[in-house]
Amino acid sequence: MSTIEELKAKVEQLEAELTALKQSQPRSKIDVMSSEVVDSNPYSRLMALQRMGIVKNYENIRTFTVAVVGVGGVGSVTAEMLTRCGIGKLILFDYDTVELANMNRLFFQPHQSGLSKVKAASDTLSFINPDVQFEVHNMNITTIDNFDKFIERLNIGSLKNGRIDLVLSCVDNFEARMAINTACNELGMNWFESGVSENAVSGHVQVVLPGETACFACAPPLIVATGIDEKTLKRDGVCAASLPTTMGIVAGFLVQNTLKYLLDFGTVTKYLGYNAMQDFFPTMSLKPNPSCDDRHCQKQQKLYQEKLVSQPQRVVEVAEEVIVHEDDWGIELVSESADVKENKSVAEGLELAYTVPDDVSGAGESVATDDVSLEELMNAMKSLK
Amino acid sequence: MSTIEELKAKVEQLEAELTALKQSQPRSKIDVMSSEVVDSNPYSRLMALQRMGIVKNYENIRTFTVAVVGVGGVGSVTAEMLTRCGIGKLILFDYDTVELANMNRLFFQPHQSGLSKVKAASDTLSFINPDVQFEVHNMNITTIDNFDKFIERLNIGSLKNGRIDLVLSCVDNFEARMAINTACNELGMNWFESGVSENAVSGHVQVVLPGETACFACAPPLIVATGIDEKTLKRDGVCAASLPTTMGIVAGFLVQNTLKYLLDFGTVTKYLGYNAMQDFFPTMSLKPNPSCDDRHCQKQQKLYQEKLVSQPQRVVEVAEEVIVHEDDWGIELVSESADVKENKSVAEGLELAYTVPDDVSGAGESVATDDVSLEELMNAMKSLK
Repeated sequence: MSTIEELKAKVEQLEAELTALKQSQPRSKIDVMSSEVVDSNPYSRLMALQRMGIVKNYENIRTFTVAVVGVGGVGSVTAEMLTRCGIGKLILFDYDTVELANMNRLFFQPHQSGLSKVKAASDTLSFINPDVQFEVHNMNITTIDNFDKFIERLNIGSLKNGRIDLVLSCVDNFEARMAINTACNELGMNWFESGVSENAVSGHVQVVLPGETACFACAPPLIVATGIDEKTLKRDGVCAASLPTTMGIVAGFLVQNTLKYLLDFGTVTKYLGYNAMQDFFPTMSLKPNPSCDDRHCQKQQKLYQEKLVSQPQRVVEVAEEVIVHEDDWGIELVSESADVKENKSVAEGLELAYTVPDDVSGAGESVATDDVSLEELMNAMKSLK
Repeated sequence: MSTIEELKAKVEQLEAELTALKQSQPRSKIDVMSSEVVDSNPYSRLMALQRMGIVKNYENIRTFTVAVVGVGGVGSVTAEMLTRCGIGKLILFDYDTVELANMNRLFFQPHQSGLSKVKAASDTLSFINPDVQFEVHNMNITTIDNFDKFIERLNIGSLKNGRIDLVLSCVDNFEARMAINTACNELGMNWFESGVSENAVSGHVQVVLPGETACFACAPPLIVATGIDEKTLKRDGVCAASLPTTMGIVAGFLVQNTLKYLLDFGTVTKYLGYNAMQDFFPTMSLKPNPSCDDRHCQKQQKLYQEKLVSQPQRVVEVAEEVIVHEDDWGIELVSESADVKENKSVAEGLELAYTVPDDVSGAGESVATDDVSLEELMNAMKSLK
């Protein structure tokens, strides 16, 4: 029979085992990234990018802070890729919880059901790479109070309590994209947008440089060809389709563009689309709308034009960026689906990738949608052909 | 002070907690995929593909068996995507162990270091989706005995003990690709090849239909432009670069093509390349080499020609497949790297994506490399421009 001593020893042993399982930290933090080729070095394959001439100074990645807004099918994989690449700091924003209905996408696991996505993600990610610093916010950035908090974190959330380096939008709705857009226009901060269509077989990533490229209020950045009627999708009890493939690919494009942007290699693509049905990848670049509803966008456009005048060598670079792959775009845009339905607000064969609500509230003056800018976008797009 | 009863209760509680943590199986198996939109349904977002007209019968996915050969940076994510999509059965082949040096890619976690990749993968994946059946082989398929076992599993490894539906190659070396090629030519079994360059910034997926398209012995399927001298890469102590982005994207392309092939939607792309530096995506299709060294390939070519004669309506379909995106291919093939070195065996600016060993042994008669078929490929490629 058990004595008190035996039972106490058993309790102690079980508690130790539990603690080990819960908190097992398989390696201590690493001060300097090594390029040594040994099985125990988690950075050897990344540092090899330097030896191969792809990246000049890979270890720079440890100095950067990136915010990931939306930690769902795209955002969670985005955060994981950046974590495994050894980014300095990640700031995660989401207000959703993990559900079994998320298990058809990568990253979250069934035992995390019910946890907040930001908590579940940072637990897993800090276990995968303890060198990365995590800051998480379990909140909806579109409410007024939270929006102020969001702006503050972008402004002073870096490793050195200054501005962060990049905002990645991985959200799935119009209001949240508008909130990010408003914040980044106000701060003059670059952000990368991403999205996946509701039928799960197309997506895109887009670079928004306030003043230099179209912002989300200049024109909703994604108008895609689709056979789906958006208006039927967001009703209660009806859910969009999703695939781990499409979302993983879009996250891959988003982080690849992020690495190229932060570590200065290759070409940062302004807009990269992905059509899974035909494996078609449209690229384009959109100029800002001089009559954009967002006054901060107009201010940023003026600042950018002033910069162009004072730094004339930038002009050449800008001219290069306006290249449009017109054949791809023209041929494929209307051919994604064999069953394209009519849509009153945009041209035949096209519709908005995001639901534009009739009444938008809670995210500031520039959130309201505007039919005029849509028409302008359509005209701009027609002129590309 | 603790009484025996209190301690016994504590032990019981701790043991329950430990068991839950170690073996937590958050859901029981699901007999029929439901399209019900509730948070607890892991298949709602996949079944939505039917309602949206993308896939006719999504649940068919449960009838298929797919082999994943190589469970590294591409293969592990490939297996995870298929698992989350609810594939019927996965057969995993690898003989490597998880190391911290793998942590710069998705999927494996530090606490799995030292485990065999197939064991670590199937543990995680069967936890993520208990509906999928797993069969794992911790072995190198290129040795003679293991190759016979490999052939056998392809031939009788399906859910109904018959032929499996598809082989996915996610290996990182020439010999293993040749072994898969030899097996699939012999069996007349379709397989999809994948690869990522040693400098981590390009990759591809390719469909091999024995007799209909070029096999790996007809011509090594990937010749890429690169600045890396392959011969310097495989020496001891020197490792290739890798990125979670590129590998996740290639896995996404591979599984997307697999879903399209198995569930009959969209266009299955014969060859899709990915150049991360410029976001360029070449596509092409290669016909089989009538003088291929692999006699089984020649036999499959005859069978395919006989099928074409007896089913003339197939001819139209074949003609469509030979479309080559010549502009993309011609423009970009030599421009990936600014520092392209000469290579004696292939044209300037090009080299083999895989190391072709001087002396290949252990994987059958058709494994030897052949300069003639390389030259033929180069001629074929020149004629495409």
